[in-house]
Amino acid sequence: MSQTLADGGAAAAPAWLERLRWDEYGLIPVIAQEAASGKVLMFAWMNREALQATLQRGEAVYWSRSRNRLWHKGEESGHVQTVLSMAIDCDEDVLLLQVAQQGGIACHTGRHSCFYRGLEQDRWTELEPVLKDPATMYSKPKP
Amino acid sequence: MSQTLADGGAAAAPAWLERLRWDEYGLIPVIAQEAASGKVLMFAWMNREALQATLQRGEAVYWSRSRNRLWHKGEESGHVQTVLSMAIDCDEDVLLLQVAQQGGIACHTGRHSCFYRGLEQDRWTELEPVLKDPATMYSKPKP
Repeated sequence: MSQTLADGGAAAAPAWLERLRWDEYGLIPVIAQEAASGKVLMFAWMNREALQATLQRGEAVYWSRSRNRLWHKGEESGHVQTVLSMAIDCDEDVLLLQVAQQGGIACHTGRHSCFYRGLEQDRWTELEPVLKDPATMYSKPKP
Repeated sequence: MSQTLADGGAAAAPAWLERLRWDEYGLIPVIAQEAASGKVLMFAWMNREALQATLQRGEAVYWSRSRNRLWHKGEESGHVQTVLSMAIDCDEDVLLLQVAQQGGIACHTGRHSCFYRGLEQDRWTELEPVLKDPATMYSKPKP
């Protein structure tokens, strides 16, 4: 493979990747759905480098807007997302990943899905249990 | 109900709505998932007014960034999305709707889902059939 992460995205990007409509920040929204359950686990963003890294690893690599760096999902917690397939929408500006969620936990709060609160009688109500204490999920202290 | 569409969002918004983290354009990303099938149908955006209109109607009302106006999904095609429930993610900046898709067609191309193309061998490949000719779906000519 001629293009690697070390290229920093400088090499010519493949046609399927350039076809996507990247936003003004060079990002595209990404929905991660658990293939086995159909559950929507999380929503994040990728830049070109993150998407190429995702394809190379076969695991989801996002662009962290808060940390301003590539974010290999599960890099600390071990809750990696194996990417089984990838789809694009009609406008070519949103990606949908089908993933296998390692550890069964996608959310940094220790829940299965990040969408664990539902609107009930004008209140956001927690509908999913914490499966694992977040304090035990991360090996390194947060900066 | 004290606040209606006619207020243009000027009335005080409820706490559950103000709690959301609206982006710099006053928008929030929205994922629409078909409750019955688990299929992710589409991705769009809402502003505060669209979200309140969605709650009032019980049908998805998005903010069209291309047309710069509220967009009652299905207003022309009849392919309305009945909203069954609504969830928010851990960062409080993404909404996930569970919907019943009227007509079984969410995409303006006449397909069930907007995510009808998958990446196969470095090509975006159509994986879902057109269920209805788009030319017959819209009553009014497009501007």
